[in-house]
Amino acid sequence: MSQYQDLKQACYEANMQLPKLGLVLFTFGNASVVDRDKGVFAIKPSGVPYDTLRPEDIVIVDFDANTVEGSGRPSSDTKTHAVLFRHWPEIGGIVHTHSTYATAWAQAQLDIPILGTTHADHLTADVPCAPPMDDAMIAGNYEHQTGWQIINEFEKRGLSPREVEMVLLSNHAPFTWGKTVEKAVYNSAVLEEVARMAYLSCTLRPDVPRLKQALIQKHYERKHGANSYYGQR
Amino acid sequence: MSQYQDLKQACYEANMQLPKLGLVLFTFGNASVVDRDKGVFAIKPSGVPYDTLRPEDIVIVDFDANTVEGSGRPSSDTKTHAVLFRHWPEIGGIVHTHSTYATAWAQAQLDIPILGTTHADHLTADVPCAPPMDDAMIAGNYEHQTGWQIINEFEKRGLSPREVEMVLLSNHAPFTWGKTVEKAVYNSAVLEEVARMAYLSCTLRPDVPRLKQALIQKHYERKHGANSYYGQR
Amino acid sequence: MSQYQDLKQACYEANMQLPKLGLVLFTFGNASVVDRDKGVFAIKPSGVPYDTLRPEDIVIVDFDANTVEGSGRPSSDTKTHAVLFRHWPEIGGIVHTHSTYATAWAQAQLDIPILGTTHADHLTADVPCAPPMDDAMIAGNYEHQTGWQIINEFEKRGLSPREVEMVLLSNHAPFTWGKTVEKAVYNSAVLEEVARMAYLSCTLRPDVPRLKQALIQKHYERKHGANSYYGQR
Amino acid sequence: MSQYQDLKQACYEANMQLPKLGLVLFTFGNASVVDRDKGVFAIKPSGVPYDTLRPEDIVIVDFDANTVEGSGRPSSDTKTHAVLFRHWPEIGGIVHTHSTYATAWAQAQLDIPILGTTHADHLTADVPCAPPMDDAMIAGNYEHQTGWQIINEFEKRGLSPREVEMVLLSNHAPFTWGKTVEKAVYNSAVLEEVARMAYLSCTLRPDVPRLKQALIQKHYERKHGANSYYGQR
Repeated sequence: MSQYQDLKQACYEANMQLPKLGLVLFTFGNASVVDRDKGVFAIKPSGVPYDTLRPEDIVIVDFDANTVEGSGRPSSDTKTHAVLFRHWPEIGGIVHTHSTYATAWAQAQLDIPILGTTHADHLTADVPCAPPMDDAMIAGNYEHQTGWQIINEFEKRGLSPREVEMVLLSNHAPFTWGKTVEKAVYNSAVLEEVARMAYLSCTLRPDVPRLKQALIQKHYERKHGANSYYGQR
Repeated sequence: MSQYQDLKQACYEANMQLPKLGLVLFTFGNASVVDRDKGVFAIKPSGVPYDTLRPEDIVIVDFDANTVEGSGRPSSDTKTHAVLFRHWPEIGGIVHTHSTYATAWAQAQLDIPILGTTHADHLTADVPCAPPMDDAMIAGNYEHQTGWQIINEFEKRGLSPREVEMVLLSNHAPFTWGKTVEKAVYNSAVLEEVARMAYLSCTLRPDVPRLKQALIQKHYERKHGANSYYGQR
Repeated sequence: MSQYQDLKQACYEANMQLPKLGLVLFTFGNASVVDRDKGVFAIKPSGVPYDTLRPEDIVIVDFDANTVEGSGRPSSDTKTHAVLFRHWPEIGGIVHTHSTYATAWAQAQLDIPILGTTHADHLTADVPCAPPMDDAMIAGNYEHQTGWQIINEFEKRGLSPREVEMVLLSNHAPFTWGKTVEKAVYNSAVLEEVARMAYLSCTLRPDVPRLKQALIQKHYERKHGANSYYGQR
Repeated sequence: MSQYQDLKQACYEANMQLPKLGLVLFTFGNASVVDRDKGVFAIKPSGVPYDTLRPEDIVIVDFDANTVEGSGRPSSDTKTHAVLFRHWPEIGGIVHTHSTYATAWAQAQLDIPILGTTHADHLTADVPCAPPMDDAMIAGNYEHQTGWQIINEFEKRGLSPREVEMVLLSNHAPFTWGKTVEKAVYNSAVLEEVARMAYLSCTLRPDVPRLKQALIQKHYERKHGANSYYGQR
């Protein structure tokens, strides 16, 4: 029996949430779960339809994206996951989808502005959209560079991956993460809904103002601050 | 056996309608039911997913939002419900959601204009959007002030909560209410559909005219007037 | 046993198609079926939810909208149906909904322009939007006048109810009809889809041209002309 | 037993995927499968609802669109399929739908611009929109000319049907194809999602830039190039 059985099962279950939540068409998405003690993570095999995916199909890879266990080829986005897991020790799971509204913002190369408390309950910043990569980075180790594109954008903007758990990649689609993969999946669904609401507000009123600072702080703190009072203790 | 069992059951059933009607994602919503004789109301516990919610999880609180019965923490919006129940003796239930189209209008800080009879069958005014709160109100007793923001806006506009059973809060989302919680739930679904139709009409024709007064009166009266002839006697 | 049992059953089945096709929320719609030999039609009772509606609840009324059989109050739109059935002997069923996209066009007081073959397969004209009624007509016998508003608009435009089986009422919503009530239901679903496609094309390209005449004729004739070759013989 | 039984079954299964994927309303679509050895293809009968369609209803026709086996009338679009199968020997299946967003672009007479990697994973060009036909072509052998309209547009633009497996017909709707009919069905669903994302990006930001060339190449090659690494070997 594989020493990674529980890790594969957790990864399988997270992946299966994506079509259930309406976030993926066919195979356009993947979720991964890290085991930091063992220095590996579990990820969906590439191009396998969700309705035939089994826990034993999940691939185990190390932080250089080399396969440790599994007969299938891991997701084509594996190197991006590997860079993020290696560079951000605080995250436990990553989700990548092409969910419709978040991808539409990424294609438009626009940050999703913070317009309401649905957004502020989850993060105090606009959802950042990392710019298109240089041609040299694309032609080179593309998925590896995609990871660095995310990390560099966070550093440039002074954002913490503990506080902002989602990003858009220009012309591509979103990545989300979290302390656990369940949180990363949750963030993917939240991002899609926030993207949809912002699309509607912006097309209804193109000069819609960003949320005022006092409200941003209030909503974030009631959910995440030291004196938070959202949810059960 | 709790003296509040029926109240909890009614509150539970109203809350369970919200995901069924497509009005909430995850835990983004709550419904409450008042018992005016006992001076309490029942409300959803904070942050509990709908698919694990049970009638016995419902929390009973008084009109100061103090817990009377229940081990869980009540909804973070409890103080808003408490202010509305105390100030408006005619209402029996309240629903708060972040339904997509209604929230998009709230984020845009715009009233939903009355454009058709779907709207006029339910209220004769635009759906009011209360303005953003002062920073001092936000930093203070925020959810309590949210209740007052609604009440003050109704008084400023000369609206009656018996005739207009819904409101948008700028940058936030809608609240609806009714003589019963079933009516409050119904109003939430009607508001979302009215918000969606108005979004479509306004993006199709930005200078769309408001409904003429004669038609507003006619449709409201055939449903709610002394000589109403909609529905069964 | 009622002599109208089959008529009630047909009316019941047509009404139950409306929520199944996603065309009504709560009770916002109704279907009727005529029996010309008996000089009556069957229609949904007013305000009865679809999930509790039974065939025996269907109301039988004559062409003056007087109840012939049934204990419930007929749909509040009954007089509109009565006027259309009396004036247009060629139609066998009528459907009224507040389907989302068709209603958005009605609220915008715009005809739905013929932009593609999905539309042309069903009618060769824009979907007509009848203008708002005079205040005197609204204050008077409103639902009766609604029927005349439709008939007058068709006469003004030189349209035949055999060729154009749908209409929008400004600020209100659509009515459709057909030789049978099944066709009227089908037309309601087609109208909603045509309305949705036209909304998308018009917001994508505000100066989108109408379909050229040669294509309008071709698509209509292949489905409805003397030498039609769509469907089975 | 028919020598075409397997062909009919494959055609039946492909057609049944279309409503399941949300790509057709009523009978607005059809799928066909070719058997090049026998010089025939299987296609849906015209106007038969999907919920009553049976494998034995599928019609077998030759490349002149003459019926070889089957009692029903073949799809009214059969001649278009016949022209494409005859002219493009590399394709094994064709799908025609009136899917909502793709049809909205066709009605707007606009190519779908390549804006992101969801698009680039499948084709490196904008989705071409063939212009409206001349009136003479429409009045003549219309469905036959529709096939030629597609082929001529591909030749004019220098596109290969192996690389671009989808097209929009101005004022009409999309056609897709593939080496197999399963791939043609898959392409129809991908096209609808790409059309929806592009609609959202273009209405959000009308001056949205096309995808840069380096990214177009990279995403297409990782899925389709000699050194592709998407999917299982």
